[in-house]
Amino acid sequence: MNSQTRQLSNHAPQNSQLVEQEEKRTDLGFGTKLTDSKIRLVNQDGSFNLVRQHGSLWDRLNVYNRLITMSWVQFFSWLLVAYLFTNTLFAGVYMLTDPSTLVGIADEKLNGPFWKCFFFSSQTLTTVGYGHISPNSFLTSSIAAFESMIGLLAFALATGLLYGRFSRPLARIRFSKRSVFAPYLDVNAWMFRIINTRPNQLINLEITATLTRLEPKGDGTLTRKYYPLNFERSKVSFFPANWTLVHPITEKSPLYGSTPEELEQADSEILISFQALDDTFVQSVHTRFSYRYDEILWGHKFRPMFDGDQQTRLDLDKLDETEEAELN
Amino acid sequence: MNSQTRQLSNHAPQNSQLVEQEEKRTDLGFGTKLTDSKIRLVNQDGSFNLVRQHGSLWDRLNVYNRLITMSWVQFFSWLLVAYLFTNTLFAGVYMLTDPSTLVGIADEKLNGPFWKCFFFSSQTLTTVGYGHISPNSFLTSSIAAFESMIGLLAFALATGLLYGRFSRPLARIRFSKRSVFAPYLDVNAWMFRIINTRPNQLINLEITATLTRLEPKGDGTLTRKYYPLNFERSKVSFFPANWTLVHPITEKSPLYGSTPEELEQADSEILISFQALDDTFVQSVHTRFSYRYDEILWGHKFRPMFDGDQQTRLDLDKLDETEEAELN
Amino acid sequence: MNSQTRQLSNHAPQNSQLVEQEEKRTDLGFGTKLTDSKIRLVNQDGSFNLVRQHGSLWDRLNVYNRLITMSWVQFFSWLLVAYLFTNTLFAGVYMLTDPSTLVGIADEKLNGPFWKCFFFSSQTLTTVGYGHISPNSFLTSSIAAFESMIGLLAFALATGLLYGRFSRPLARIRFSKRSVFAPYLDVNAWMFRIINTRPNQLINLEITATLTRLEPKGDGTLTRKYYPLNFERSKVSFFPANWTLVHPITEKSPLYGSTPEELEQADSEILISFQALDDTFVQSVHTRFSYRYDEILWGHKFRPMFDGDQQTRLDLDKLDETEEAELN
Amino acid sequence: MNSQTRQLSNHAPQNSQLVEQEEKRTDLGFGTKLTDSKIRLVNQDGSFNLVRQHGSLWDRLNVYNRLITMSWVQFFSWLLVAYLFTNTLFAGVYMLTDPSTLVGIADEKLNGPFWKCFFFSSQTLTTVGYGHISPNSFLTSSIAAFESMIGLLAFALATGLLYGRFSRPLARIRFSKRSVFAPYLDVNAWMFRIINTRPNQLINLEITATLTRLEPKGDGTLTRKYYPLNFERSKVSFFPANWTLVHPITEKSPLYGSTPEELEQADSEILISFQALDDTFVQSVHTRFSYRYDEILWGHKFRPMFDGDQQTRLDLDKLDETEEAELN
Repeated sequence: MNSQTRQLSNHAPQNSQLVEQEEKRTDLGFGTKLTDSKIRLVNQDGSFNLVRQHGSLWDRLNVYNRLITMSWVQFFSWLLVAYLFTNTLFAGVYMLTDPSTLVGIADEKLNGPFWKCFFFSSQTLTTVGYGHISPNSFLTSSIAAFESMIGLLAFALATGLLYGRFSRPLARIRFSKRSVFAPYLDVNAWMFRIINTRPNQLINLEITATLTRLEPKGDGTLTRKYYPLNFERSKVSFFPANWTLVHPITEKSPLYGSTPEELEQADSEILISFQALDDTFVQSVHTRFSYRYDEILWGHKFRPMFDGDQQTRLDLDKLDETEEAELN
Repeated sequence: MNSQTRQLSNHAPQNSQLVEQEEKRTDLGFGTKLTDSKIRLVNQDGSFNLVRQHGSLWDRLNVYNRLITMSWVQFFSWLLVAYLFTNTLFAGVYMLTDPSTLVGIADEKLNGPFWKCFFFSSQTLTTVGYGHISPNSFLTSSIAAFESMIGLLAFALATGLLYGRFSRPLARIRFSKRSVFAPYLDVNAWMFRIINTRPNQLINLEITATLTRLEPKGDGTLTRKYYPLNFERSKVSFFPANWTLVHPITEKSPLYGSTPEELEQADSEILISFQALDDTFVQSVHTRFSYRYDEILWGHKFRPMFDGDQQTRLDLDKLDETEEAELN
Repeated sequence: MNSQTRQLSNHAPQNSQLVEQEEKRTDLGFGTKLTDSKIRLVNQDGSFNLVRQHGSLWDRLNVYNRLITMSWVQFFSWLLVAYLFTNTLFAGVYMLTDPSTLVGIADEKLNGPFWKCFFFSSQTLTTVGYGHISPNSFLTSSIAAFESMIGLLAFALATGLLYGRFSRPLARIRFSKRSVFAPYLDVNAWMFRIINTRPNQLINLEITATLTRLEPKGDGTLTRKYYPLNFERSKVSFFPANWTLVHPITEKSPLYGSTPEELEQADSEILISFQALDDTFVQSVHTRFSYRYDEILWGHKFRPMFDGDQQTRLDLDKLDETEEAELN
Repeated sequence: MNSQTRQLSNHAPQNSQLVEQEEKRTDLGFGTKLTDSKIRLVNQDGSFNLVRQHGSLWDRLNVYNRLITMSWVQFFSWLLVAYLFTNTLFAGVYMLTDPSTLVGIADEKLNGPFWKCFFFSSQTLTTVGYGHISPNSFLTSSIAAFESMIGLLAFALATGLLYGRFSRPLARIRFSKRSVFAPYLDVNAWMFRIINTRPNQLINLEITATLTRLEPKGDGTLTRKYYPLNFERSKVSFFPANWTLVHPITEKSPLYGSTPEELEQADSEILISFQALDDTFVQSVHTRFSYRYDEILWGHKFRPMFDGDQQTRLDLDKLDETEEAELN
C-alpha cells in the first residue's frame, strides 16, 4: 500500500455531479447491467430469473421454506414417504438386533419377522402401542424408548409445519393476464385489474408500478433504467370487488408518446408490487407481478365484471375479458 | 390493429383537467357505481354486500378461514363429526378386509363386529391403543399403521386450528347502536361512542370516518361520492373506558346544513374504520362499522356511562343510552 | 322531533373558536373529568384504575388472556386441577355405567372400583392406554372413545397455550423506582432510567412522556390537562446497557418553575409509554409506567451503574441508586 | 431537602446552548463514555461486549431464548438429555415405591428391576403404553397417571419450541468480510457488499451505517462521537442478487480526507443496521454488523460476483473477492 492510496480523497473533487446524478436514479435492486432481452426481471409468479451457485447445502435445500410453500399433495406425500422410510429404518435395526425379542404375536401372522418389526416400529413411532407386540429384551426396549421419543418429536414438527402452512399470509390476488392501453376520460391510460380470489377481506391495499427499459448510454452500450408509474389511485381502504389500476398517459408519464415497437425494442417491462392487510389475521400480504411489452394490448379496454345490471354480483371468470376500443 | 391505435397519445391533450379531478376524488375502493339505495355498503358486522361467482371450489369453501372464524360450538361440533365420520370410514374398511383378524375380545361384548372395528379404529386414531383389540394380520396391521399416522396428523391440525382461533387478533369493540346529532360547545356535532367489551387493553387507537352519498352528475344520473369526516380527536394512546367520537359541524364539514330528508334522499352512509393495538400480544386489530341515515338520532345526546358520581365505575350496559337535547 | 332540531346547524356559527381550542388539546384517552386525587391514572404495572360493570360473563372471565398472563406456577396448577377434575368426572361416569365392564385387573389392587375407573380414565385421557384395564362393553367403549378425543384436544389446547405463553412479546423493562430532578449541564432536568432485565436485545426503542395535572377552569372547577414532555433523546437504535431519559427544564418545559408543593396540589402524574422491537422474534413490545409527584426526588442524581472503572460491567442492582446533588 | 433544591429552575438560564448542542448529538444508545480502544461496540455476529451482573437467575438463564437460538445439534442433545434424565428420575421413584408392582414381564429380561422401571417410565412419558409392563398398585398407578400428564406437556413444550425455532424470522445475510475504500465515478467511496445466503426472497431492504470514533474534548479527555454515513442508495425493493453499498467520499462525508492512521488512532468503527421483509412469512428481519478500522481495505475494489458473461449466474463464493484499484 503506497502513500498515494493511503491518503484518501486528497485529489478528488469536493463535490461530484456524477454522484448526485447516481443518487437520483431509481433502482429496485436489479441494477443497470441486466440487459439481456431474453430474460424478464420478474416472472408472473413473482420469482426472479437468477441461478445461485456455491451456497451451503443446507441453505440450498432450504427445507423449511420448501415444506411450507409446496402444494398440499406434495406435502402429504413427503410426510407419508418419511413415515414409511423411518419405519423401514427402525424395522431394519430391530432385525439386526434380534426380532425374536419382540414377543406376543407369531411372525407368520404378519408375513414374517420383518413386517412384525415394521408394524412394531409404526406402533412405537405413533405411540399407539397396542402391546400385542412388545420388546422383551434390554436392547429392543432401549431402541423402542428412543424411537417413541423420535416419533413424538417428528409429529411435533409436523404440527408446526401444518400450522405454518395454514397461517402463512398468502394473498391470492389474481392479476388480469394482459394489461391494456385504453381510452380514459379525454386521454389514454395504461390499465390492468386484479381480484381477490378468496372470500376473506383485504384492507389497506397499496400498489406501485415501475417501468424498466433499456436505454443507450453515451458510449452506445445499453443500460437498464427504471421509472415509477403513478396510478390515478394507488391506495384503497377496502377491496370488496375488482380493482382496476389506471396510469393516465399525460405529459408526465414516461410512457407518453411510446409505440409498441419502441416498447419491444427497449425490452420494456412493468414491475408491480402489491401489498395489503389480510383481515382475518391482520397480517401483511405481499405479491409481485410484471407485464412485459408483449403482455400489453393496444386499443383494448376491460369489460365490466358485474353480472348484467346487478351491481353486487361479481363474476370472477370475467377478469381477463377485454374488447377493442379506439384510443384518443 | 391499425396505425391509429398503435401510436399512443399523439393526439391526446398533454394535460387533462379531468384526470386531475379524478385523482383528487376520495374513494375507499367501492367505486362510483354502487347507486342502488337498497344496499348498504358496509354491514354493521363489517362485511360487504357482494356475491362472488365462479371462484374455484377450494377458494369458495375457504375451509381454514371458516374453521377459524366460526363459533366455538360449531367448531367442536365439526371436530366431533369428523371424528365419528373417520372412525366409521375406517370401521367400514376393517369390515371389508376381515374383522376376525382383529383379535382379543369377543365380538358380542361390543354389539357385534362393526362396533369392534369402530372402537379399534378410535383407539388407533387417538393412539390410545389399549391392545385389548389388536390387528392380527398383515392387511389390518397395515391399515392400522396408516390410520395411526392419519390420527396424529389430524390432531396436529386440530392443535394448529385451536391455536389459530385463540391467537387471532380480535377487537371486541362495541359501537353504539345509533349515532347522534347533538349540541357541542357553541355548535352541533355528529357523535357516536365505543367501548372495549373485553378487559384486555387496547392502545394506540385510531378511527377514520367517511361520508358517502349519491349525487347527480351533469347528465342527471346518480354517482356515489365520498367525503372524509374529521374528528375533533381521531387518535388516542389509551382506551381505559368509553370513547366518544365527535365530528363538529362547522363550515368545513360536508354535513354542514344538511337535513334528515337530504341525508335519506342521498342514501347517505357513514363508513367507519377502526384500528388499534392489542396489548397482550401486541397485535393489530381492525374493525369496520357503518351508520346509515336511519341510524342517526337528531337532537339527542349520549348519557354518561359512569355509575353515578364515581368516575371509575364504567357501566357497559349504558353504551346506547341517549336523551333529547336541543340543537344549537 | 320538531322542525327546529331537524334543520341542522342553521343558527350555529360557521366557525367556532371553542372547537379549535378543543382540537388542540392533548388527550391520551383519559378525558378531562378524572379529577379525584386519590386515584392515579396509570399504575406502575401499566394497568388502569377502572371497574367495569355488566360485561358478558365470557368477556369478564377472559379465560385465554388470563391463562396467557398468569404466572407459571398458577398455570401449571390450573392444568393439574383440570386434569384431576376431568379424570374424576369420567371416573364418575364409568362408575355410573358399570365398573365391572372395565376388565383386566382386580379392583382391590387399585383400592376399589372408583380408582380403577380413575386410572383407566387417566390412561385414556393421556392416550397412554396400557391395556391392563380395558373397556369390555359397548357403553364403556363409547365413553372411552369420546374421552380419548377430548384428551387429545385438551392437550392440543395446552400445546397452544404453552406456545402462546412462550412466544408472547414481553419487554422486561425495569424503570427506576423514583425519578429525580437533577442538575444537568447548565440547567436542571427531570430524569429517570431503565434497564432491560433480560439478556435478549431490544432495538429501535422509543419513549414518550406526558405530564398530567389538575387545573382550575374559569368557573373554579378542576379539569385535567395533559402536556407532552420532550426528552433530549427519545429514540435510540440499540439498548446494550442502561438508558437515562432526560427532560431538560428550560423555558419550553411545562415543568419550568414548578415546586414540589405545586406538583402535589395539582395531583401531577407523569405517564410514560415505552415501545421497542425484540430482536429474537422481531416483535413489538410495549410498556406503560407512571411517576406521581411523590415518586420524584428533588435535588438528587443517579449513580453510575457500571462497576468501578470497567465500562462494560453493568450492575443491574444499582438501577435505583441516587445521591443528593445541588440543583442549578 | 432545603428550600434551595425545592424551588426548581429559578436561577437556571431560560435557554441553554449546551442543551441544544446535546439534543443535536447523534447517539445510537452506546453513550459517549465507551472509550476503551480494546473493545469494539458491535461484534460481527451482532452482539454487544457487555457483562451484566445481578439480574434474577431466571432472567440470566433466559431458557426460552437459548432454546430458540442454539444450534439444532445442541437443541436435540438437550431434548435427549432431558428425556433420559426424566426417565431416570421416574425410574428412581418407581424403585423407591415398589418395582414388584410393575407387572407383566420378568425383571431379568430387561437387566433387572431398575431398567424395567426405566422402560416403563419411557413408555408412560411418551404415552406409547404397550402394557407389557403395567402398574399393579394404587401408588404406581398414581405416579404413572402423573407422569403421562407430564409427558404430554413436555412434548407440547417441544412442539412449541420446534415451531418457534422454525418460524423465527432470520435473515441469513452475509456481509463481505472486509469493506473497501475504492475509486467510484470521479471520487472515491467506502463500500461493502452483502448477499442473502438463502433462496427465499427478501423485499423492502433498508441499511443504515454510523461512523463512531473517539474525539478529544476541550479538557483533553476522549469522548465517543457518532456520525451517520449516507449511502448512494440505502433502500431497495428487491434483492435478487448481491447488493453493494456505496458511501461516496465527498465533502459532506465525515470520512472526507481521513487516513488509515487517523481511523486507527480514533478507534473508528462503522456500525451497520440492516432490516428487510422476509417474503415467505412477511416477517421483519433485522441484523447488525460492524467494520472496524482494521477491516477496511484501502485502494481495493470488489470483483463482480457473476459467473463470466452470464448476468444471471451468481457465485456466492465470490462475495469477499477484491482486487487492488488506484484511488482517485
